[in-house]
Amino acid sequence: MAVDETVDGDALVQMFNAGLAHAVPAMYGLGVRLVEVASGRAVGTVPMDTNRNHFGGMYAGALFAVAEMLGGAVALASCDASRFYPTVKDMQINYRRPAMSDVRAIAELDEATIEAIVRQAEATGKAEFTLDAVLTDASGTTVATTHGTYQVRAR
Amino acid sequence: MAVDETVDGDALVQMFNAGLAHAVPAMYGLGVRLVEVASGRAVGTVPMDTNRNHFGGMYAGALFAVAEMLGGAVALASCDASRFYPTVKDMQINYRRPAMSDVRAIAELDEATIEAIVRQAEATGKAEFTLDAVLTDASGTTVATTHGTYQVRAR
Repeated sequence: MAVDETVDGDALVQMFNAGLAHAVPAMYGLGVRLVEVASGRAVGTVPMDTNRNHFGGMYAGALFAVAEMLGGAVALASCDASRFYPTVKDMQINYRRPAMSDVRAIAELDEATIEAIVRQAEATGKAEFTLDAVLTDASGTTVATTHGTYQVRAR
Repeated sequence: MAVDETVDGDALVQMFNAGLAHAVPAMYGLGVRLVEVASGRAVGTVPMDTNRNHFGGMYAGALFAVAEMLGGAVALASCDASRFYPTVKDMQINYRRPAMSDVRAIAELDEATIEAIVRQAEATGKAEFTLDAVLTDASGTTVATTHGTYQVRAR
């Protein structure tokens, strides 16, 4: 469902995470969680403890995972999830610094872009969009950035 | 250690996978395994069963994981692992088709490139290289491709 007056952000976050456990258990198992979502904005987290690698930093794939998830969250918060589902077409991740703590990933789309995606999906059954995410450690330092291309498609 | 007469490929694969379980448990937990390695060539696998998503296809992050691992395997098979360690700087993944079976990822570097990496790492303490991987399903169909930039660095 789209974000509207009937579902507040916290409820949507809880629904999304419950759905994640069921729908993408491998991602859920990495500890990736949505913590905030609204039309055009999603924030996720991934924990250090279970993703520590041999250098003491976080596993590169866990950083990928938390960023990649945001495209799905933005799509589900913006489009009618009973009629459309999100997929990822491609993604670029740039590792800036080792992540030594839990990591937050934030991605935003402006309202005009969201409206265009929804309009195109409604009209043609699918729409493509790009999403940039910034990943920061507990001190606010950027540890990675991503650029992804996603599609929403009619079920 | 570098691949030489004292360690055959199978022994190196076993050592690498045992090392993976210890050093990057989150990746190991996704089921990513090295199945073949030589100087300039690495092949990995990732299983469908534990990575199935809500569309019946494989989780995008599992495909990323098996490809990303290959850069480390090539580096460890080519350079002296007691003196150098690999890191990933960036990676692009392009999803071509849903993966509906276990997936193999293959990456190769020619001998001249390997020699240049080793020479630069020995001379300067670090060397950068790019690696392309092709991911195929059980029928041999390409499901994804990746392009990654890695570094080997002196410990």
